[in-house]
Amino acid sequence: MPTVVPLILAGGAGTRLWPLSRELFPKQFHALFGENSLLQDTLLRASAAATTAPIIVCNDNHRFLVAEQCRAIGVDWLSLMLEPEGRNTAPAIALAAHRALEEDENAVLLFLPSDHLVPDVNAFAEAAAKAVSAAEQGRLVTFGVRPTRPETGYGYIQVDGEGDGAVPVTSFVEKPDAARAQQYLDSGNYLWNSGMYALGAASYLRELERLRPEIASAVSQAYTDGSNDLDFFRPGEAFRTAPSESIDYAVMEETDKASVVAVQFAWNDVGSWSAIWDESSRDESGNHLDGDVVAVDTRDSYVLAQNRLVSTIGVNDVVVVETADAVLVAAKDRVQDVKAVVGQLKSDGREEYVSHSEVFRPWGSYETVDDGERYQVKRIKVKPGASLSLQMHHHRSEHWIVVRGTAEVVCGEDVHLLSENEGIYIPLGSNHRLSNPGKLMLELIEVQVGSYLGEDDIVRFEDVYGRSS
Amino acid sequence: MPTVVPLILAGGAGTRLWPLSRELFPKQFHALFGENSLLQDTLLRASAAATTAPIIVCNDNHRFLVAEQCRAIGVDWLSLMLEPEGRNTAPAIALAAHRALEEDENAVLLFLPSDHLVPDVNAFAEAAAKAVSAAEQGRLVTFGVRPTRPETGYGYIQVDGEGDGAVPVTSFVEKPDAARAQQYLDSGNYLWNSGMYALGAASYLRELERLRPEIASAVSQAYTDGSNDLDFFRPGEAFRTAPSESIDYAVMEETDKASVVAVQFAWNDVGSWSAIWDESSRDESGNHLDGDVVAVDTRDSYVLAQNRLVSTIGVNDVVVVETADAVLVAAKDRVQDVKAVVGQLKSDGREEYVSHSEVFRPWGSYETVDDGERYQVKRIKVKPGASLSLQMHHHRSEHWIVVRGTAEVVCGEDVHLLSENEGIYIPLGSNHRLSNPGKLMLELIEVQVGSYLGEDDIVRFEDVYGRSS
Repeated sequence: MPTVVPLILAGGAGTRLWPLSRELFPKQFHALFGENSLLQDTLLRASAAATTAPIIVCNDNHRFLVAEQCRAIGVDWLSLMLEPEGRNTAPAIALAAHRALEEDENAVLLFLPSDHLVPDVNAFAEAAAKAVSAAEQGRLVTFGVRPTRPETGYGYIQVDGEGDGAVPVTSFVEKPDAARAQQYLDSGNYLWNSGMYALGAASYLRELERLRPEIASAVSQAYTDGSNDLDFFRPGEAFRTAPSESIDYAVMEETDKASVVAVQFAWNDVGSWSAIWDESSRDESGNHLDGDVVAVDTRDSYVLAQNRLVSTIGVNDVVVVETADAVLVAAKDRVQDVKAVVGQLKSDGREEYVSHSEVFRPWGSYETVDDGERYQVKRIKVKPGASLSLQMHHHRSEHWIVVRGTAEVVCGEDVHLLSENEGIYIPLGSNHRLSNPGKLMLELIEVQVGSYLGEDDIVRFEDVYGRSS
Repeated sequence: MPTVVPLILAGGAGTRLWPLSRELFPKQFHALFGENSLLQDTLLRASAAATTAPIIVCNDNHRFLVAEQCRAIGVDWLSLMLEPEGRNTAPAIALAAHRALEEDENAVLLFLPSDHLVPDVNAFAEAAAKAVSAAEQGRLVTFGVRPTRPETGYGYIQVDGEGDGAVPVTSFVEKPDAARAQQYLDSGNYLWNSGMYALGAASYLRELERLRPEIASAVSQAYTDGSNDLDFFRPGEAFRTAPSESIDYAVMEETDKASVVAVQFAWNDVGSWSAIWDESSRDESGNHLDGDVVAVDTRDSYVLAQNRLVSTIGVNDVVVVETADAVLVAAKDRVQDVKAVVGQLKSDGREEYVSHSEVFRPWGSYETVDDGERYQVKRIKVKPGASLSLQMHHHRSEHWIVVRGTAEVVCGEDVHLLSENEGIYIPLGSNHRLSNPGKLMLELIEVQVGSYLGEDDIVRFEDVYGRSS
């Protein structure tokens, strides 16, 4: 048995699941099914087939989210690698391969996207063992899923029959049109390309060097220049120069070492609201109703009410997603167009694309609950033991009122300890720092008053999280 | 020309326009079309046909709303009569008739519901003049609208031809089924019963006394026992004993004095969201989009976004109404079922049926912007010159932070003057009073902390609005 290192790529934006999924809190971090997020389920699933802690690659913006979700399920990591920008899968896997080789020159990477749904962990582990075994012998192994419908949204893998383990890939084929998808389904010789792989770290780097030397050398340089910052690994600047290519395009479609394991387990890439409806529990009217929903004569619909009452009357096959700052009402067969809406919000520079109203920070979170012409009200949560940066604002004063837990407040030269129902005033221009010295979550209400209330009116003097702005 | 007294009945609940319309802020008070509310438009329309200020009859709960909306458009009232509970139209009109007779024994009441849409004020005034002229001669005159579709939601009035002015009514008929509605439409001898009337005050009371003596005597007693309280008239307790009957049922269907003026103007009773869509401006896709809406491939729909972004994709003929605490998504041809949802909310004792998140008070308004386990955050607005009651709470402390304007705060024995960015703490058990001594609206953020935060934890010592609780 070789060293099997899970590699979880948590870099996606999950655009098609807006308004639940946001740039700063995308799909993989949401608990769409049950208590765990897709990322957490993926980490637990991977551990069933692995011999080490995972390598996780994610966007720099998501590092504290990933760390928090790992801690919540008791999963440690071998390395948490931060991409300064997404460069697609080929460079990310190469980065992880260098790290895996430090563990074992024969290490096999078990590469899993963080946002797929695979409910049967045992069946997954069984298939993974077959894939790892072929990878150990130098094959680059993908997981192929037996098609159940003429899906036009996936790439396909052509095979010449299936063995019990990995078999050579005949060819990779692009997303087909409907007629071709039906042919593939009927022929029995095509599998869906699931985007999961077992790869010998050394074999992968060798093939990448041969087929895409510019990716291989950029990543190699970035790995060498990389640095550890708190719990995180940051690759060197060269990473940004690696061509942005997928493993399929850069390696799998060109190598003669491609194999595939046909898997028997249920798999869903949860790529749209209709996919979520497919996988969710439903009542006798075919509805999945989550939250405070009053549905009258509603059928085959998905309704998620996160913040307030949602009532539906006389509608069928719709998706209604209600969040604190946005509501989506879409025909279920048109949910792919959510992407178009998000594109429009992005080009309009709107916040509803980037973040939820609750914004997560290493020390906790904040949410704007009210804003007016020259004031803003936020609910701030600070984790036990956590501390915000020592900071100062040029354009606003702040009133803090503790509503739960205990706060330690540095303001100018003074240190104050505040408990529930106590408040303090932070004048404009004062150096101040907020900490939670206690064992319970600290919650406070902040009322900001001033002529400019943007997040960028902040001067940071010291920050335990290494942030300068 | 007799004394023509407008009588505006503003007592409806507007249930079918939930979630915009609420028990404490129903349909007639909303600006559904343009800048004025339906009530305000009705008051202005009435004044075009009247010789005096109006009598307004409304529910006790709505008195400050009515007063505020009158002041906003510069309309004074002859009397603002408060029903302790709604007893339908026959008693309400009788109450107003007594008041009108104090102006002129020949006074004619021009009775208008407060929640209808009649865009053409001149055409209305012209029809009203004809109706008033017939009323002066002792007729009880209703306004009939020429049907434009086989509507099953209205009562009909059968006539034997139409003159230039009022003609005698042959009969009143109940809401018909679809086949009969089509017959009525085809025959040309039927008009919609619009619910607007011109009535000699003395003639009406005489007929009521003859046909429904128990209503006439209860209201007469209630008028005699009534009292003026600030700007309002409150009838005596006998009002509650008047049988709850409509003018149609109690008088019009039985009297031989019923006449009707067939009107030429556009009229809509705005009884449902589809009626509002009918009357609203629409884009080339047939949509009325109001607020922050991103609509993709959406047709013939009504979308109102009051608080947040609403996005619709691939839906047709739907109504989406988003408010601070509730979202409605309904098929346009099923909007009558909104009533069923409201019924369910009512039987569940839910606030979303009663009030909006912004709650109006004589002194201003408040809105809960955040609430947690032992705290609640409210935005409070106090009108210039207004004052809350001197009060005390047993279970909560309050932190007030002024974010706009100037506050005068009495707390215990002390009086404080606070301006923007100043705060004060009101300990549990302290007598306190908040006033706005300034010329601008006062806005403050209140953070309540305590074990019980219900509105009923209040002891009132003095209240300029005559409220004891």
